[in-house]
Amino acid sequence: MPKKILLLTTGGTIASAPTAQGLAPAIGSDDITEKIAPIASLYQVTARDILHLDSSNIQPEEWRLIAREIYAGASGYDGIVVTHGTDTMAYTACILSFLLRNIPIPVVFTGSQLPLLHPLTDAMDNLRAAFAMAASGAPGVFVAFNRKIILGSRAVKVRTTGFDAFESVNAPYAGSVNSAGLDLNHAVLPKPKGPFFLDDAMENSVFLIKLTPGLDPQIFDMLLQMKYRGIVLEAFGAGGLHFIHRDLVSKLHKIVEHGISVVVCSQCLYERSDFSLYQTGKKVLENGAIPGWDMTTEAAVTKLIWALGHTHDSAKIREIFATDYVGEIHLPKTQ
Amino acid sequence: MPKKILLLTTGGTIASAPTAQGLAPAIGSDDITEKIAPIASLYQVTARDILHLDSSNIQPEEWRLIAREIYAGASGYDGIVVTHGTDTMAYTACILSFLLRNIPIPVVFTGSQLPLLHPLTDAMDNLRAAFAMAASGAPGVFVAFNRKIILGSRAVKVRTTGFDAFESVNAPYAGSVNSAGLDLNHAVLPKPKGPFFLDDAMENSVFLIKLTPGLDPQIFDMLLQMKYRGIVLEAFGAGGLHFIHRDLVSKLHKIVEHGISVVVCSQCLYERSDFSLYQTGKKVLENGAIPGWDMTTEAAVTKLIWALGHTHDSAKIREIFATDYVGEIHLPKTQ
Repeated sequence: MPKKILLLTTGGTIASAPTAQGLAPAIGSDDITEKIAPIASLYQVTARDILHLDSSNIQPEEWRLIAREIYAGASGYDGIVVTHGTDTMAYTACILSFLLRNIPIPVVFTGSQLPLLHPLTDAMDNLRAAFAMAASGAPGVFVAFNRKIILGSRAVKVRTTGFDAFESVNAPYAGSVNSAGLDLNHAVLPKPKGPFFLDDAMENSVFLIKLTPGLDPQIFDMLLQMKYRGIVLEAFGAGGLHFIHRDLVSKLHKIVEHGISVVVCSQCLYERSDFSLYQTGKKVLENGAIPGWDMTTEAAVTKLIWALGHTHDSAKIREIFATDYVGEIHLPKTQ
Repeated sequence: MPKKILLLTTGGTIASAPTAQGLAPAIGSDDITEKIAPIASLYQVTARDILHLDSSNIQPEEWRLIAREIYAGASGYDGIVVTHGTDTMAYTACILSFLLRNIPIPVVFTGSQLPLLHPLTDAMDNLRAAFAMAASGAPGVFVAFNRKIILGSRAVKVRTTGFDAFESVNAPYAGSVNSAGLDLNHAVLPKPKGPFFLDDAMENSVFLIKLTPGLDPQIFDMLLQMKYRGIVLEAFGAGGLHFIHRDLVSKLHKIVEHGISVVVCSQCLYERSDFSLYQTGKKVLENGAIPGWDMTTEAAVTKLIWALGHTHDSAKIREIFATDYVGEIHLPKTQ
């Protein structure tokens, strides 16, 4: 029996065509299934258009919609493929990893750097990998791109134009396509820890600050005034921020005291942050910031949006960040 | 005759030792020159401590101080080595590339991921490369790290702990250390375009926004209220940002009309942004934003701080960004 795969389309470059305003979403699931007939014919595919958006326009409202479509479809299919623009695919795949708690089937996001209709498109290769992963039986939320399978909680778009647009940051690939076929890395695959449920409470009240030298701490007062409940701070290196001339450390202390959850991570793309290493970082932890360890920024931001949908209690938020839900964080053993 | 090298120290991990508050700058140029005697003995070295800071605390005030020390020393030496913390080294090396216009000698920033006093330190290797580069006669501002020489305008710290902490983003290495010795890539080396002068006007009035899905456009009103003169926006992918639900495009239009210079680049680490490709990006350029093309974020932020020190005229700022000063931007041929 061929595996039953649900294909949900949301727009993106893969479904784009040239318009007077530049590339914009144009083709739908009918055109897509027709074009990918050699792939789709191997499976029993049901296709549905749920959005027609450039992924730069995909926001918490769309995250919820996509999550609900997947939740509704999960019981009737062996796996789900979601086509999505590449620009925010890492954010969507990451937050969906949190919203679809203990998803029992594979949910695979894919897209392309060149439209499906372009003669040099990478879409066919990406869809091939995505369908194979969706049919693999390995549960979890993934990104399939450039013959690699990446955990949804670890994907980052690191290149604007190359077909190798996504990397698995601070975690091995969950799988790759090679002469062995779909070669899964079982050590990386998520293990559902309980029953499947939709857990889509979110509060879009998180601001991301990528620190620059000389940043005026006054911005934190402004964020307080704007009623933000969470801040993700991309500090320097393993965890530095300035406290001479302009004292960010005291300011962080102040906003943490106001009940704002501040998650600190690194602006370096690779490797873990550790705010206990240096004097400049240590002060931050002492002042109540939550360490992001080796999380990607995409994971830190979406997890905080998700956590704030559940609680405003900063001790509970801290607890949520000290828990690995879907491979998004490797906690230090000494914690 | 051994080459005359000026060694300026500013602190950083390389000069750190453990304290109760974590690693903090501890040793000075005397200790450093003593420890690196096997390297320093090949040159005629003059060493001077100019700062004792973790580089997270290095800000525009320190950039000016370092620039003036280098300017004062440039006429008496064949080259200058500056030891500096790694956390903000990329920012410092980049802004110094702008401040030291047409520097006629090599100025080489280096540091280490482990202190010079640590038994496994990478400092010796980095200093070896930095001194060799400083003695090479090739003018410009560089970062020497992990046996690579990187243009100051292209360095990015991408790893928090690995010795391969820095990458040359969107440009080849300026040189590397291998069995040929210091192997320079002459095509990449900057060519001074006029007389050397100190051009250290800066205005620390730039805010960096790394876009996240669902970002409330109200932040731009706040930045206007806070009297920021420049904004660098790390958009999604090649140049996307949302305009449904929350209209960032109209808001950008508004702040550009208020005379704020907005430079748009990508939050992807590698490859160029091109806001003319997609509908979501094209709207931004039509609304007056300045394209950052393939600049690093470090270069976009520091160049805007430098540009604002010279003019508030947004047409002139646009002109400055359409000029390649020190290899920081590859302008498209069609421009």
